[in-house]
Amino acid sequence: MTYCLAIAVDAGLVFVSDSRTNAGVDQVSTYSKMHVFSRPRDRQFVILGAGNLATTQSVISQIQRGLKSGKDHSLWQVEDLHEAADYVGSLSRTEQDKHGGGSTFEASFIVGGQIGEQAPSICLVYPAGNHISPPAKTPYLQIGESKYGKPILDRIIRADSTLETSALCALVSMDSTMRSNLTVGPPIEVLVYERDSHSLERRYSFDENSEYLRQINEAWDANLQEAFGRLPPIQLSGDHL
Amino acid sequence: MTYCLAIAVDAGLVFVSDSRTNAGVDQVSTYSKMHVFSRPRDRQFVILGAGNLATTQSVISQIQRGLKSGKDHSLWQVEDLHEAADYVGSLSRTEQDKHGGGSTFEASFIVGGQIGEQAPSICLVYPAGNHISPPAKTPYLQIGESKYGKPILDRIIRADSTLETSALCALVSMDSTMRSNLTVGPPIEVLVYERDSHSLERRYSFDENSEYLRQINEAWDANLQEAFGRLPPIQLSGDHL
Repeated sequence: MTYCLAIAVDAGLVFVSDSRTNAGVDQVSTYSKMHVFSRPRDRQFVILGAGNLATTQSVISQIQRGLKSGKDHSLWQVEDLHEAADYVGSLSRTEQDKHGGGSTFEASFIVGGQIGEQAPSICLVYPAGNHISPPAKTPYLQIGESKYGKPILDRIIRADSTLETSALCALVSMDSTMRSNLTVGPPIEVLVYERDSHSLERRYSFDENSEYLRQINEAWDANLQEAFGRLPPIQLSGDHL
Repeated sequence: MTYCLAIAVDAGLVFVSDSRTNAGVDQVSTYSKMHVFSRPRDRQFVILGAGNLATTQSVISQIQRGLKSGKDHSLWQVEDLHEAADYVGSLSRTEQDKHGGGSTFEASFIVGGQIGEQAPSICLVYPAGNHISPPAKTPYLQIGESKYGKPILDRIIRADSTLETSALCALVSMDSTMRSNLTVGPPIEVLVYERDSHSLERRYSFDENSEYLRQINEAWDANLQEAFGRLPPIQLSGDHL
């Protein structure tokens, strides 16, 4: 499995992805699930992929081919993020159908970035090829093993969260997911995009020996235990059935 | 959907279940998902059910009928918890097959309790009718919407946790699930079984206006925000790609 998420706050965007891929227990590998496409000072895209590896790899390589060929329909030609998401969705859908369709070949994507002076944004592209923007109150999107890491995002992320808070919260969400699900694992990739910077250079990778990931893991574990310890003691006498 | 969990610590057992049932958005109701069967001073069972409501209701009413008829095969006759789980599994499987099988009619159960002087224990009965005990290191079992509330259980519950800690942690796990998933909701039922007490009387129900549930929700929210705020600040400079 996979866990990828993107957060869209006023200050910009944060993308985080794990790198574990498995096709059966004997075929566990690491693949980057974060793909960047940048035309300096003009348009920036980050695409995260989850699901069938052959489908996601094919979609990414078709996007690259589209950019090289300068076709009508490529990330350099789309008018806005929605059109970019439509484009990724249609490539994905076509690729799945080519192999007979069905849930085996399904893939989901998060497409985010900024085009010119438009606001930065993120979209979730479903296996069917259609897409959604995040809700205003919880401005993040997830693909893959999304449930374990959702509660902390719901509690912390707001539109006015800083990029630093958002990136830290995304790493905590990833940490909770890795702890509860073995099919999600490092290296963990993080990309922080500052609004209007038109630069994708703040990209980082933490492997399984990362001292910083270990620090987050230990500090969060200790802080959570303490937070739990400071809850009001249980009062089970009141509402006896 | 549903979220039910059971915890088996040295001191005894804790069971927690939500009560929301939906069969389409127009048919949201509340049903208790916690069923108790007690033969004083001899054997105690708690059964939690998730999945197709017709299947779970049928299984419970067949268990009740079995107890009344005094048949060979009923909860009063089984030798141990595993046999009880097998019995529930076979009733569930038969009921599903009666309606053609398939995922629509599937149901899962947690069967827990204590028989005589045997150690109290819990089992998870899969839709196929087979069952498992919990792992020694993480002595809890979940059915239904289990992922949102798993990380906190993994961090807190150990075999030597007290019944109070276990019940509080189960309520926090339920709170995280309700916050992230609308199909899980109150009343929340809690049953605390003290080892060798052979009493199922410590049973409590918290409805949506429960002051105690609100307190847990607010305290946990505040404590989590604080725990997050005390994490080491993000250091993204080190591992630049």
